[in-house]
Amino acid sequence: MSNEKKGILYLIPSLLGDSPLENSLPSYNIEIIRSIDEFIVEDIRSARRFLIKAKIEKPIDALTFHLYNEHSKNVDINTIVQGLMNGKNVGLISEAGCPSIADPGAEIIQFAHRNNIRVIPLVGPSSILLALISSGLNGQNFAFNGYLPKKEPDRIKVLRQLETLVWQKNQTQLFIETPYRNDALLKDILNACKDETLLCVASDITLPTEFIKTQSIRQWKSNKQSFNDHPAVFLLGKSAY
Amino acid sequence: MSNEKKGILYLIPSLLGDSPLENSLPSYNIEIIRSIDEFIVEDIRSARRFLIKAKIEKPIDALTFHLYNEHSKNVDINTIVQGLMNGKNVGLISEAGCPSIADPGAEIIQFAHRNNIRVIPLVGPSSILLALISSGLNGQNFAFNGYLPKKEPDRIKVLRQLETLVWQKNQTQLFIETPYRNDALLKDILNACKDETLLCVASDITLPTEFIKTQSIRQWKSNKQSFNDHPAVFLLGKSAY
Repeated sequence: MSNEKKGILYLIPSLLGDSPLENSLPSYNIEIIRSIDEFIVEDIRSARRFLIKAKIEKPIDALTFHLYNEHSKNVDINTIVQGLMNGKNVGLISEAGCPSIADPGAEIIQFAHRNNIRVIPLVGPSSILLALISSGLNGQNFAFNGYLPKKEPDRIKVLRQLETLVWQKNQTQLFIETPYRNDALLKDILNACKDETLLCVASDITLPTEFIKTQSIRQWKSNKQSFNDHPAVFLLGKSAY
Repeated sequence: MSNEKKGILYLIPSLLGDSPLENSLPSYNIEIIRSIDEFIVEDIRSARRFLIKAKIEKPIDALTFHLYNEHSKNVDINTIVQGLMNGKNVGLISEAGCPSIADPGAEIIQFAHRNNIRVIPLVGPSSILLALISSGLNGQNFAFNGYLPKKEPDRIKVLRQLETLVWQKNQTQLFIETPYRNDALLKDILNACKDETLLCVASDITLPTEFIKTQSIRQWKSNKQSFNDHPAVFLLGKSAY
């Protein structure tokens, strides 16, 4: 099957907060964004705000937006990708950061592969990747676990399982939480994990208030900090020394 | 301990190959690169080539380079970070892509955290992240496994273990290989895995020859392709449908 008459699905990273465009995005992305007039977005308001910040030249009302997020399970993907199938280039935009890491964009991308639509990823900020490289924890072997269970006993159990993987496989464990619950998660981590395990908290990545710190659970216990309402990535790992 | 008199450790992503700077790096990175004259690098030749491409304004011979790579196990980190400890901003540059993902830079970063040196990650291309988002495979739960064992029986065994994690936990499994051995790895994957498992091969990411394809093992078997000598990321996953 040829894909000559089909469009390209561009994966367009957005900003992680109110950071300057030129700090987080290559100028090529802006060129691509300006060449497109159809978008599949996780959230229409934030996508419009992002495109305005990118100084898209067309009037924003002349653009087509297809909403696709966790509430879109009943939406027929075929209607969303009609433009792509008919030869239009379409941009997939996540609410923050890279599409399809922690949002349902993956389904759109699988559809593209199944239909021989070319997928081109653009470079941009990923809080998970930036947290990982800044942590100093093992980057040769790592796992991202998304959100942990909400209930404390289940969460403590999962945290201990992840800590076991850290020590047995030297596999760095990453996870996230809804920002207003960050301190409750931190409390559980300090309760569940061994004093010698290393914890990195990376919050407000790429923003002026960026904070990234790796230290042992023992050190975190003696130096309490609050991360509530600041988007953060949490990482467990062990010392390279 | 205050870090007022210490420098900042900037994590500076380099290009994934001979791609234009403006496709892969925010312009802010170039500003930062030009403001620094001391670098810790995985490979001096490729770092110099990268800095020349970034049109660094100082004469390249006026810059200080500290070599730190997998052959540097006996190097005293204290000598490498002396500038940082004395208040100089220093850039950490990997041979390709983001520092500390598949290189020993992580030890330098851990040293920084232990000594209250601020670590600031710059945005840039990561073949692992770009492969993951383009694959359409589960991005809410994934693991990067680095290189698999070299010997075929061990490798087949590990591939089956990874495939089990795909099906049991819906955890996408990523791994890499030295480019001239890519076809041997692909052959082992096709032998080890079930027909219904999805495999993504993402090669030459960000380059004009970029190729990214997700399809079932069955489809890969009926449509053989060669990836030797093209840097590639391999991903196993399952369908979102």
